[in-house]
Amino acid sequence: MQFKEKTICKNYVYKGKILSLRKDDVILPNGQPAIREMVEHSGGSAIYCEVDGKILLVKQYRYPYEKEIWEIPAGKLNIGESPEQTAIRELEEEGGIVAERVEKMFDVYPTPAYTNEVIRIYRAVGLTKSKQRLDDDEFLHSQWIDKEQVVKMIYDGEINDSKTIIAVLSSMK
Amino acid sequence: MQFKEKTICKNYVYKGKILSLRKDDVILPNGQPAIREMVEHSGGSAIYCEVDGKILLVKQYRYPYEKEIWEIPAGKLNIGESPEQTAIRELEEEGGIVAERVEKMFDVYPTPAYTNEVIRIYRAVGLTKSKQRLDDDEFLHSQWIDKEQVVKMIYDGEINDSKTIIAVLSSMK
Repeated sequence: MQFKEKTICKNYVYKGKILSLRKDDVILPNGQPAIREMVEHSGGSAIYCEVDGKILLVKQYRYPYEKEIWEIPAGKLNIGESPEQTAIRELEEEGGIVAERVEKMFDVYPTPAYTNEVIRIYRAVGLTKSKQRLDDDEFLHSQWIDKEQVVKMIYDGEINDSKTIIAVLSSMK
Repeated sequence: MQFKEKTICKNYVYKGKILSLRKDDVILPNGQPAIREMVEHSGGSAIYCEVDGKILLVKQYRYPYEKEIWEIPAGKLNIGESPEQTAIRELEEEGGIVAERVEKMFDVYPTPAYTNEVIRIYRAVGLTKSKQRLDDDEFLHSQWIDKEQVVKMIYDGEINDSKTIIAVLSSMK
């Protein structure tokens, strides 16, 4: 048996720069009407970069948590850009590294109850050094950290970002 | 050097049932004014349950993705409930299993650019069988699946939920 919720009407509560909010009228699988609140997001790319046992992480202030947190380089898709191009661009901008190409690791649904965002995680391949070039409203530090130390930071609760935990844990095989 | 964004004014665009949306006026580290859009969420608990090499998963329709997806049992915190109580309650409601207690695995930030949600992932300990009791608007299947198969589903892209991937990958040591 498959369950499905049928959209009766998409209602935009807010249309914003990075996200929009909908409060849709739906019909549940049991035929009852209901409301579903959800965020529309254009998606993002993240890039896992490991060289000689070290992982490239960025420490960035994240407004919702009111603090700086550790993450792999990532960002949202610009208009006209493929997810692979986004990953390569973010690695160069945030980490000062040029990747020849990227390999898909995962498509992640960060919190499926209320957002349609897909975070595409890539592995960087064929690296050469470039220069960090941040957006005007972007403030972050990048750092190469021993993989062993990164794993310890995950289990000690010092790294909490979902895409970063997934990329690192999956690279432990 | 530490970066910080200073809140000038919190502006609620929407106050909802499961989430609220803010469009705050802030001052960036360089002194410039900016707008930050963010979702306020009360947080959720998820529970990893493994017995004899099998993992308990639920398959649930997720409106934002317009399809059913596989996840470990999870849900948002009810008022007056501790995160541990939420995890134990969701396991019984969705999976029909009573856990004697839970052990914290991770606090996960699912998508830190625009939500303040913290997903607390627990491991279930001391299990006895009970009966599935779903909410009126909840429609899902629960299933015990071989761990080896679950790992394959993650790497084949059939499991995309961030908390589920983290719980399973971290249990492969």
